[in-house]
Amino acid sequence: MAEPFRHRLRVRWSECDLQGVVFYPQYLAYLDHTVTELWREAIGPYTEMIPEHGVDMVVAEAGMRYRDSARFDDELEIAATVTRLGGTSMTTAFTIERLSDGALLTEGELRHVFVDPDDFGKREMPNRVRAGLERFAAAAA
Amino acid sequence: MAEPFRHRLRVRWSECDLQGVVFYPQYLAYLDHTVTELWREAIGPYTEMIPEHGVDMVVAEAGMRYRDSARFDDELEIAATVTRLGGTSMTTAFTIERLSDGALLTEGELRHVFVDPDDFGKREMPNRVRAGLERFAAAAA
Amino acid sequence: MAEPFRHRLRVRWSECDLQGVVFYPQYLAYLDHTVTELWREAIGPYTEMIPEHGVDMVVAEAGMRYRDSARFDDELEIAATVTRLGGTSMTTAFTIERLSDGALLTEGELRHVFVDPDDFGKREMPNRVRAGLERFAAAAA
Amino acid sequence: MAEPFRHRLRVRWSECDLQGVVFYPQYLAYLDHTVTELWREAIGPYTEMIPEHGVDMVVAEAGMRYRDSARFDDELEIAATVTRLGGTSMTTAFTIERLSDGALLTEGELRHVFVDPDDFGKREMPNRVRAGLERFAAAAA
Repeated sequence: MAEPFRHRLRVRWSECDLQGVVFYPQYLAYLDHTVTELWREAIGPYTEMIPEHGVDMVVAEAGMRYRDSARFDDELEIAATVTRLGGTSMTTAFTIERLSDGALLTEGELRHVFVDPDDFGKREMPNRVRAGLERFAAAAA
Repeated sequence: MAEPFRHRLRVRWSECDLQGVVFYPQYLAYLDHTVTELWREAIGPYTEMIPEHGVDMVVAEAGMRYRDSARFDDELEIAATVTRLGGTSMTTAFTIERLSDGALLTEGELRHVFVDPDDFGKREMPNRVRAGLERFAAAAA
Repeated sequence: MAEPFRHRLRVRWSECDLQGVVFYPQYLAYLDHTVTELWREAIGPYTEMIPEHGVDMVVAEAGMRYRDSARFDDELEIAATVTRLGGTSMTTAFTIERLSDGALLTEGELRHVFVDPDDFGKREMPNRVRAGLERFAAAAA
Repeated sequence: MAEPFRHRLRVRWSECDLQGVVFYPQYLAYLDHTVTELWREAIGPYTEMIPEHGVDMVVAEAGMRYRDSARFDDELEIAATVTRLGGTSMTTAFTIERLSDGALLTEGELRHVFVDPDDFGKREMPNRVRAGLERFAAAAA
């Protein structure tokens, strides 16, 4: 079974709120940054997605479970595993851990749908994209 | 059965992304703005939460289903119904509709937990808070 | 001399930082929201800018002086005066005040340039746009 | 004369707007991220600022000149030079360049004021902070 893709980032001041912790919608943006980097590793820069593959992606579903809080300047590691590669969609599961103590902060899931860049209608996942993503796919996917 | 709480806002330029639509984590912030306004109506300004009630809230779980996209300058109506009032937590269900055509754009759910403002340990929901929230609670809650 | 355009908004939780105040880049976004509303009043929705007038705008210069801080849930009034209407650019001066006590929080200035929507090259300000903006222009503009 | 401090980052999807470029208030946040990293190099983590030095900082003035646009996935290099070390304030000048072609995208300036963490009243810059910052100070500062 494949290893998850791992991305590291440091919490920015601009991402924290009045409670002294990362504002909870911001973790969803962290997942998005991780997808960008997973894509670069698996397929290539996302900027080539539309010109090379003629498709774009949108998020159809997102879920987050917040277990502990990240604070300003914490270094985080986000692990991503593709858990389902469907005909027109993919599901990815994520964990966010704090590097200093390995604490699990957040678990999340995103379901992306492949779409036509102009009308946002569903499109088949291109074969080259599927082949690249399989590298980070769980056995069951 | 109680009516949901309704909050309206207009999509800002700063909330849209390269695809010409609202960036998906931003909808979670829209739910947060709505909770602030529901709170004002049900209980009072959230700024009085810690000094008056000695508790704070954090989000433990969030879920979003994206059905259609909001665009820059769209006016949105967010409806919120408290679906569960537990001992230390509350769950709220949301819909986001576009005012111009009534299209359902997003459905979401947040589970808040009442915590100690200092150590983030769980705390009982204060009675006055519970009483205020019941006004926007579904029958089952 | 014309009255400034005035826009009101309430500070959102998501706009505040660890110091308990609005994060300073966020005030620049407040100016942007105000330009959108000034535009609606003076000319029409900004979404019609490219299809109707064939031009777009970009910001070439921004300046902010922070005098006092806005806090979560404060209601703010942003006043905007067009101080210069050039051939291809406009300059707007802003003040941000807190409604509850009239305190001046921030003074700012934006210089917008009219550009070709495709290549971002400079374009003349359309006459109908200029006519609309004159309503909120200082005598000297 | 000292070398400027240099920080690199990659433009995130969440930082771009409908025009396909970085939203202009976001560049101000880029300067803020750079100050955090300059601080780490010159003095130590900013999280130790209040406990170790008993002071905090706020931004009193900001200026930006936008020359060209950064796009999604661009790698940027931000150079920071401390141009003035006053009794209670410091001024820093920044340039933001695109790494791929060295194009100058933005020039900016921030004036920070040292303040009491509780009442935001002005405070003297601590000597150890001043000594650290001199490493990235222009000759004139």
